[in-house]
Amino acid sequence: MAVKRGIWNRLASGELSSEQAVERCIARYGRRENEVRAFAAFDAERALGEARARDRERELRGPRSVLHGLPFAVKDVIDTVDLPTQRNSPRYEGRRAEQDAACVRLLRQAGCVLLGKAETVEFAGIGRNPLTTNPHDPARTPGGSSAGSGAAVATGMAPMALGTQTGGSVIRPSSFCGVAGFKPTYGRVPVQGLWLHAPSLDTVGWMAEEVELLARTAEVLNLGQWQAPEDGRSLRIGLYRTPYWPDAEPASRAAVETAAEKLAEAGHSVDTVDEIPAAENLNEWQDVIMHGEARISLLAEHGAGKQGLHEDIIEEVEVNRGITPRLMAEAYDGIGGLRPVFDARLADYDAWLTASVPGEAILRSEGNGEATFNRLFTALHLPCVTVPAQKGPAGLPVGVQLVGARFADMQVLAVAAVLEKLLADK
Amino acid sequence: MAVKRGIWNRLASGELSSEQAVERCIARYGRRENEVRAFAAFDAERALGEARARDRERELRGPRSVLHGLPFAVKDVIDTVDLPTQRNSPRYEGRRAEQDAACVRLLRQAGCVLLGKAETVEFAGIGRNPLTTNPHDPARTPGGSSAGSGAAVATGMAPMALGTQTGGSVIRPSSFCGVAGFKPTYGRVPVQGLWLHAPSLDTVGWMAEEVELLARTAEVLNLGQWQAPEDGRSLRIGLYRTPYWPDAEPASRAAVETAAEKLAEAGHSVDTVDEIPAAENLNEWQDVIMHGEARISLLAEHGAGKQGLHEDIIEEVEVNRGITPRLMAEAYDGIGGLRPVFDARLADYDAWLTASVPGEAILRSEGNGEATFNRLFTALHLPCVTVPAQKGPAGLPVGVQLVGARFADMQVLAVAAVLEKLLADK
Repeated sequence: MAVKRGIWNRLASGELSSEQAVERCIARYGRRENEVRAFAAFDAERALGEARARDRERELRGPRSVLHGLPFAVKDVIDTVDLPTQRNSPRYEGRRAEQDAACVRLLRQAGCVLLGKAETVEFAGIGRNPLTTNPHDPARTPGGSSAGSGAAVATGMAPMALGTQTGGSVIRPSSFCGVAGFKPTYGRVPVQGLWLHAPSLDTVGWMAEEVELLARTAEVLNLGQWQAPEDGRSLRIGLYRTPYWPDAEPASRAAVETAAEKLAEAGHSVDTVDEIPAAENLNEWQDVIMHGEARISLLAEHGAGKQGLHEDIIEEVEVNRGITPRLMAEAYDGIGGLRPVFDARLADYDAWLTASVPGEAILRSEGNGEATFNRLFTALHLPCVTVPAQKGPAGLPVGVQLVGARFADMQVLAVAAVLEKLLADK
Repeated sequence: MAVKRGIWNRLASGELSSEQAVERCIARYGRRENEVRAFAAFDAERALGEARARDRERELRGPRSVLHGLPFAVKDVIDTVDLPTQRNSPRYEGRRAEQDAACVRLLRQAGCVLLGKAETVEFAGIGRNPLTTNPHDPARTPGGSSAGSGAAVATGMAPMALGTQTGGSVIRPSSFCGVAGFKPTYGRVPVQGLWLHAPSLDTVGWMAEEVELLARTAEVLNLGQWQAPEDGRSLRIGLYRTPYWPDAEPASRAAVETAAEKLAEAGHSVDTVDEIPAAENLNEWQDVIMHGEARISLLAEHGAGKQGLHEDIIEEVEVNRGITPRLMAEAYDGIGGLRPVFDARLADYDAWLTASVPGEAILRSEGNGEATFNRLFTALHLPCVTVPAQKGPAGLPVGVQLVGARFADMQVLAVAAVLEKLLADK
């Protein structure tokens, strides 16, 4: 088995205490943070104290869950009591929430240890970009908006980090940073205590050092029971290039084709999924909804004056981009009509394989990258996993994506574990 | 014109200062609150100070909006900085949010004056009922879950109050208490700072002393421009009995029939809307989604232990009511498929007329009443207005409801203003 054993694995097996796990994260933080800038807040002493408490508790009463003692980072649009939640907005500098967000509460109730707050694009939407750099090349973007979450996991500063996805904000930074990432079915993770940008799209997701930890986190968050993939069972994989395949660069195409070949070589069936009528509208519909809803989410920020707001946010509120009620209704209904169509097509497969991103991480000066292969699936509310696949021409990581039917979260994670192993075996 | 002139009207015309408006609310509070118990928090001195500041500001710089100086109450699941937000949960006794909810910020940015926090069912969902009584009969329910908002407006303790609706939590208490109430198109009012119970249904709405104030509040919250109904224009009204008409009691049926007759007598066309295939599933689908999503919203509360949680909330999390992922998907898709169908049918009308509630307010000992004529429209994301219509057999108010296509919020409010006048003219 060539998948490398990470912090969680050694923590769960008793090789590491929670305190030792946190110490490793702190050591990585010491080495990498100056360049990577993954964190908006990081409190080593506090985390060590929490870890020691979890270690004592494990001794006295046993672990609270399979994640007991696991250090984790939290995207800075998700509320935490013990560390500020600043949303990368000058307006919220030093802001302290009065309660942890529900997803953070669930993880801490399961014995996880809060390490720090991961950098984000302002309000996880548009506006000020974080200072975070790609851990593989400081001139490149880590991908937005869960930039710090991707970079923290990629550098080993955190074995797991929460993010959020409205377009491609979990899958994209995971792929750019070279880590496993998961965006669950919409609505399956509670949203209390999140900054909501486009509420009908926003979904809490997470990155992790390995796919099984993505799945164990899903388990703790009540998405279902993790089942290790059965040895020898032949998976039915659909190769779904999406209507946006022309936007996939050679690196991303090659990553998908290679993954398909490895799956086929391992005895799994890989069929091409036929085009789905009207699917070519999905990204545009997602765009209409995202901007239409974001405008409403930002109204009160805009109403409080322009000071401390990025000009893109002011523009988001003041310029309506031609988004009329009719266009909003058409977008909602167009997507709503395709949800059962995609579910029915997906029912014939264990998962679909597609691109995670157009290609490698772009230069920071050029933005955060495109969510071309994410927007449609976010709009459809489908669970998506990205798995690190290969290097692109600049030597940067490129992931491939697996997509499942709504609520098939645990199933698509099991397929991702199979693929992760195949891609790690040389 | 027989619609009585309320506080807002006299405030806007300069007859009353904001301070005087607040003083009137405080005087009503002094007379009625002991029996009605509409408020979870009420700070008269603070409100008077805020009102005086708005009065000075009006003198110096003019009004911020048409609502400048208007006192308003806020359902206690909506965050406020200056008063505690306790969600009728012992667990949140004395809780102070660190920021006003976005909808409260928008109203205060427009010059409105926060009066107090209105009582609610625990977490605006299920659980502990508030102590609030129906202002027309203390043995009766004011209707849940925006109980205090309805009762505060009905008693004149507040000219306007924010509530939220997941099933029928704005329209029902408005009808039971005998006031005008509005549930906008889903997604049109920002949700930051709300306790979300079932996020794909939860909608901020409000009650007011008259329909025009419902509309002016909508205007300030960016839903569109208020246009007074044109004199003499003939409206196209659809009489839509819904698949649930057998559940309407004689009082509610009579209220709808009388409203239809008055509209017809006034020269408006009133046609019966034909049955809509599959609409008979809507309330059941809404129920599946509401409980399925509420279970997720409450997970972290449940995970924090049972102390301070009502047994119904514990049951909501622990008993899944047979709600499977397949049932959730079917409910989402069933409703999603009907949204464009209802919009298309509604396009032939200015609004539909239907029942607001099955009948008069029931006894408090029997619950909060049914949301039979609200669940379907909430699920469909349609804007709904209730207007006080007549008295039932026990002398309690019964409203009638107007429903519009998605985003036709201002249009359905204009029709409601016409109907309000017709029902007030004797």
